[in-house]
Amino acid sequence: MSNERLQGIFTPNLVPYDDNGGINESELRRYIDWLIAKGVHGLYPNGSTGEFTRFTSEERRRIVAIIADQTAARVPILAGAAEANVKETLAACEYYAGLGVRAVAIVAPFYYKLGPESIYAYFKEIGNNTPIDVTLYNIPMFASPIDVPTVQRLSEECERIVAIKDSSGDIPHMIRMIQAVRPNRPEFTFLTGWDAALMPMLISGCDGGTNATSGVVPELTRKLFDLTKAMQLDEARQVQYDLVTLFDTMIYSTEFPEGFRAAVNLRGFNMGRSRQPMSSNQQADLEMLSKTLQCMLAAHSFTDEPIGGCPILEGIDTGQVNDIVKSVVAELRQRGIL
Amino acid sequence: MSNERLQGIFTPNLVPYDDNGGINESELRRYIDWLIAKGVHGLYPNGSTGEFTRFTSEERRRIVAIIADQTAARVPILAGAAEANVKETLAACEYYAGLGVRAVAIVAPFYYKLGPESIYAYFKEIGNNTPIDVTLYNIPMFASPIDVPTVQRLSEECERIVAIKDSSGDIPHMIRMIQAVRPNRPEFTFLTGWDAALMPMLISGCDGGTNATSGVVPELTRKLFDLTKAMQLDEARQVQYDLVTLFDTMIYSTEFPEGFRAAVNLRGFNMGRSRQPMSSNQQADLEMLSKTLQCMLAAHSFTDEPIGGCPILEGIDTGQVNDIVKSVVAELRQRGIL
Amino acid sequence: MSNERLQGIFTPNLVPYDDNGGINESELRRYIDWLIAKGVHGLYPNGSTGEFTRFTSEERRRIVAIIADQTAARVPILAGAAEANVKETLAACEYYAGLGVRAVAIVAPFYYKLGPESIYAYFKEIGNNTPIDVTLYNIPMFASPIDVPTVQRLSEECERIVAIKDSSGDIPHMIRMIQAVRPNRPEFTFLTGWDAALMPMLISGCDGGTNATSGVVPELTRKLFDLTKAMQLDEARQVQYDLVTLFDTMIYSTEFPEGFRAAVNLRGFNMGRSRQPMSSNQQADLEMLSKTLQCMLAAHSFTDEPIGGCPILEGIDTGQVNDIVKSVVAELRQRGIL
Amino acid sequence: MSNERLQGIFTPNLVPYDDNGGINESELRRYIDWLIAKGVHGLYPNGSTGEFTRFTSEERRRIVAIIADQTAARVPILAGAAEANVKETLAACEYYAGLGVRAVAIVAPFYYKLGPESIYAYFKEIGNNTPIDVTLYNIPMFASPIDVPTVQRLSEECERIVAIKDSSGDIPHMIRMIQAVRPNRPEFTFLTGWDAALMPMLISGCDGGTNATSGVVPELTRKLFDLTKAMQLDEARQVQYDLVTLFDTMIYSTEFPEGFRAAVNLRGFNMGRSRQPMSSNQQADLEMLSKTLQCMLAAHSFTDEPIGGCPILEGIDTGQVNDIVKSVVAELRQRGIL
Repeated sequence: MSNERLQGIFTPNLVPYDDNGGINESELRRYIDWLIAKGVHGLYPNGSTGEFTRFTSEERRRIVAIIADQTAARVPILAGAAEANVKETLAACEYYAGLGVRAVAIVAPFYYKLGPESIYAYFKEIGNNTPIDVTLYNIPMFASPIDVPTVQRLSEECERIVAIKDSSGDIPHMIRMIQAVRPNRPEFTFLTGWDAALMPMLISGCDGGTNATSGVVPELTRKLFDLTKAMQLDEARQVQYDLVTLFDTMIYSTEFPEGFRAAVNLRGFNMGRSRQPMSSNQQADLEMLSKTLQCMLAAHSFTDEPIGGCPILEGIDTGQVNDIVKSVVAELRQRGIL
Repeated sequence: MSNERLQGIFTPNLVPYDDNGGINESELRRYIDWLIAKGVHGLYPNGSTGEFTRFTSEERRRIVAIIADQTAARVPILAGAAEANVKETLAACEYYAGLGVRAVAIVAPFYYKLGPESIYAYFKEIGNNTPIDVTLYNIPMFASPIDVPTVQRLSEECERIVAIKDSSGDIPHMIRMIQAVRPNRPEFTFLTGWDAALMPMLISGCDGGTNATSGVVPELTRKLFDLTKAMQLDEARQVQYDLVTLFDTMIYSTEFPEGFRAAVNLRGFNMGRSRQPMSSNQQADLEMLSKTLQCMLAAHSFTDEPIGGCPILEGIDTGQVNDIVKSVVAELRQRGIL
Repeated sequence: MSNERLQGIFTPNLVPYDDNGGINESELRRYIDWLIAKGVHGLYPNGSTGEFTRFTSEERRRIVAIIADQTAARVPILAGAAEANVKETLAACEYYAGLGVRAVAIVAPFYYKLGPESIYAYFKEIGNNTPIDVTLYNIPMFASPIDVPTVQRLSEECERIVAIKDSSGDIPHMIRMIQAVRPNRPEFTFLTGWDAALMPMLISGCDGGTNATSGVVPELTRKLFDLTKAMQLDEARQVQYDLVTLFDTMIYSTEFPEGFRAAVNLRGFNMGRSRQPMSSNQQADLEMLSKTLQCMLAAHSFTDEPIGGCPILEGIDTGQVNDIVKSVVAELRQRGIL
Repeated sequence: MSNERLQGIFTPNLVPYDDNGGINESELRRYIDWLIAKGVHGLYPNGSTGEFTRFTSEERRRIVAIIADQTAARVPILAGAAEANVKETLAACEYYAGLGVRAVAIVAPFYYKLGPESIYAYFKEIGNNTPIDVTLYNIPMFASPIDVPTVQRLSEECERIVAIKDSSGDIPHMIRMIQAVRPNRPEFTFLTGWDAALMPMLISGCDGGTNATSGVVPELTRKLFDLTKAMQLDEARQVQYDLVTLFDTMIYSTEFPEGFRAAVNLRGFNMGRSRQPMSSNQQADLEMLSKTLQCMLAAHSFTDEPIGGCPILEGIDTGQVNDIVKSVVAELRQRGIL
């Protein structure tokens, strides 16, 4: 247990697939080196961006083992450790502790939507028995929500629970958590998983983020963090605006996390084909999206423009993206996510 | 592949735990025999009631193996076969085919909320490669929804997809599915997972149900099916009303499926402690609930009254249950389920 | 106060507009005569179908006055009486009582989403002071929900509250209300506002409906009621299926209630232009929809086919309607209605 | 039309009731003087906080007339002008223009949940015909949402539409609107109605707020605005935290806006009894809440402590408020608001 808060930008790692749908280990190692070279403060395998539910228990362990080995302690690792039940999850914690990761991150139970008492009981049993520091992971669009009184209660009763990663993007909620926890646990860490609100989250008291954009444009996410910490807010605001546009395009234009995988391809990594099958319509849409993303990345000089060039920038930044967002927000609401 | 529709009441099997939280095989075998003796038409392991997400991949296989062995072909089995991804799911299908089950049931992808094209692509790849008949499993409160055009499209393209189990409880939705599928696939089976609407579902054209109440009061669920098929609707309506009261009490009074597990305990089986930890408050609440359930079951002569007796029946049937339902519907809505 | 339940199909009246957007009185009178001639059991002005929120307080009174005058007691009238607050609502009740309507219907407060205690307090004050029988109106997709314990409590405390119209379409919810209220108030009336579930609702214990389809195809809605009451369920089921297709097309293809207004135009009434402005895209879509509706009505011999003819029927009943429903259910979910 | 953006904190006015439930004009005038003296930048009658739906059309006009008269141009007024339909709304705009208010604010249509095309058509017709500047009012928890492409389209086509008040509290949404509108309409104003995110909203590019807390603690809301504009963010953050606690307590502890009305009573104004009836349970709860609020206001020296004193502050700020928020967020979710 450390008395220092976690700080900065942790990248929720995507996993590259090989031609047989397995883990592409060499590409994963190359990607890890690149991320660290680009300045991310830490890594976060087996999160939602990392498609943890689409791997077997053994594969999840192997992903963390590869990343820990390649990272070689250059940056801290938060390892997603959620398994089918408490016993299996604790076994994973044990394994990840042995790999020397900084902490595990455990998402609230999903599929069944559990209430606060059950969420408390679940994390309490983990907190009482874990051999390694635990980060709570609240992502109410996918899993049972972890509410403020439950975070407070767990922070007071379990010293090995040291942090929360919250992907709600709701700033008043973040403020409520900080107010409820910090008086008793000043070293407790608050991380946001919602890139589109990173700057205002940091201004509001949050310590850092686990942000999927940092796997695509680590330069930009890191820059936003640095500018905000340095209180250069006019510059930070412009970077935040750009990040909203990129984030929206990647998250709302196709099934998550395919937009992020397409963009990492453009940065020079071969991410392979998703384990979630795609229809031919979806594949065509993804190619279109890839061109839009390439223009966006080219505008930031992260890639070349695609063959045939790009439309003028204003068109991309407002109308087109708005239309994408509009239609896909409709879709997300249909699925009960928004 | 059969040209006959599935018919009747399939019991979504609960799994009894032993003292170490493992599968209590002997109790499971005894429970299977009891269910078959009480007249259920089929069994359905690894469904939501069977807590499939809380078992490992190996345990899920073992549960079906035990049930198939014990059933010895007396009734048909639908085996829940969803695993982490398509490849793993197809491997499970292969295994269950080898056990001689009638069909598998595969829930739509969960955690990520996928759209119709992805749901189509997922089931299409399964439907093209499965060695055994497939039942689609739509449970929008827990998993990505399978919409009507997707059911229609899959039914037209994949002859090994032979049925859908729908747990939405929405009768117009069931009618829309039947209208979209039956003209081309007259032998396609429609099952409802929502006990509280079983009679009107059957009247509206549905073939049967996978109903958790049939694991608790198989006599009653079976009687409701028989009365409805015999068009004795005045009697059927009264049984449906009673079943709503029981179902509501079991499903809304505690975390699903603990209310059903508590009630099966009262029928003489030792279901053991849940893998999902409970706080001491929750344990106390569950004991209270158990008494309420015992009074309800006693009113139907399925058990004795608890020591100390029961309140007069009207109190149970209306006010008390309404209060339970009221507060817990609020809770369920908080969790985005309703 | 009467000791007899309301029974049958009440038509929620659309209001025809004249060229200046005012109430087209002569067309409204002609429409009322036609509805009564076609056999509807009662009328229901100032409901959601009747766009009550788009009229002024004075216009709402005038609509009921015209309808009461034209009906001349041939059928009973339920008059929507909700106004800005309890005092204004009671003044409207007084006025409608003077017109000799059978009862008023009062929607739960909307805009603000109030909780059960507030809903109780609101209807209790109305119930204590109304000079005329009151029907509660529960339409959770538009207004604050009226939950089961609140209906029970109001039914026990206020004898002038005599009925509920429920537009949720949720059959178990209807059963719970009936179970909670009928033991103490056997004459309390339960009406459903969800045409797509009318037959199973009646089978489940409901007394009738206030169904928008009865304003378009009163012959069909009335036939469904009669067949169900006569227990000719195979015939009833087919009519219910047809009604689902019609209802879906009218309700999900454009802003409510424009689809119903377009269809009444096809029955020979000039409904005029809506008070809710439409974009040119929407007007074009409405013309397309009108052709689809004309084909559906022609298939039932209620109109001629449109110039140019209709596609073969199967196309209409399944694929096309499914696509409409699919895309518009997405839209409705976006708006928080489903 | 002005070329300058609106700026600062506009108070959404509560309306004091007299003993007969009418508008208490003298108290309203006294309250207006107090708000202006305390430094609010503007006033905003007939908003959600002002219970506009509970007044008649005539009363809404009278409220603005009183406020305009009493304000005597000391601060600008945004007058809520939504009526039953476009024609009535335009008549109200005409009337408010004659009173010399700065602009009107028009909420999107409610009750029916309309889609983007309808929202566009509605505001387009108003924008084309209004004699006075128009502020769009987006409050998706109560009314049809106004999405980003619609705001952009209206801002490009209607120069008399000059601002949007957004009560979603969603910062990325605010950023998307600003990005979509400002390039073409640099003078367009963005106001937030969500007090709990005021500081991060301002930092993210928003011009000011229409904030209900400013009707209760204008000193604090104004101070938060001033500190943020002066970039004294450490001090601002602490005020924002305090405002979250106050805001949560007032908005989540009872039906909106009764918590705000109770708090204004404590500042020395007689707000009278609500037009929305309260049960005796609710009245008792409101008295308890009033004591909690008095302690909070006393901690800021805005009032004396209640007789009997207050619990130590920490208790109020965390546990107790969290419990309130917890249970009431559950309630709000039940009502579909969150």
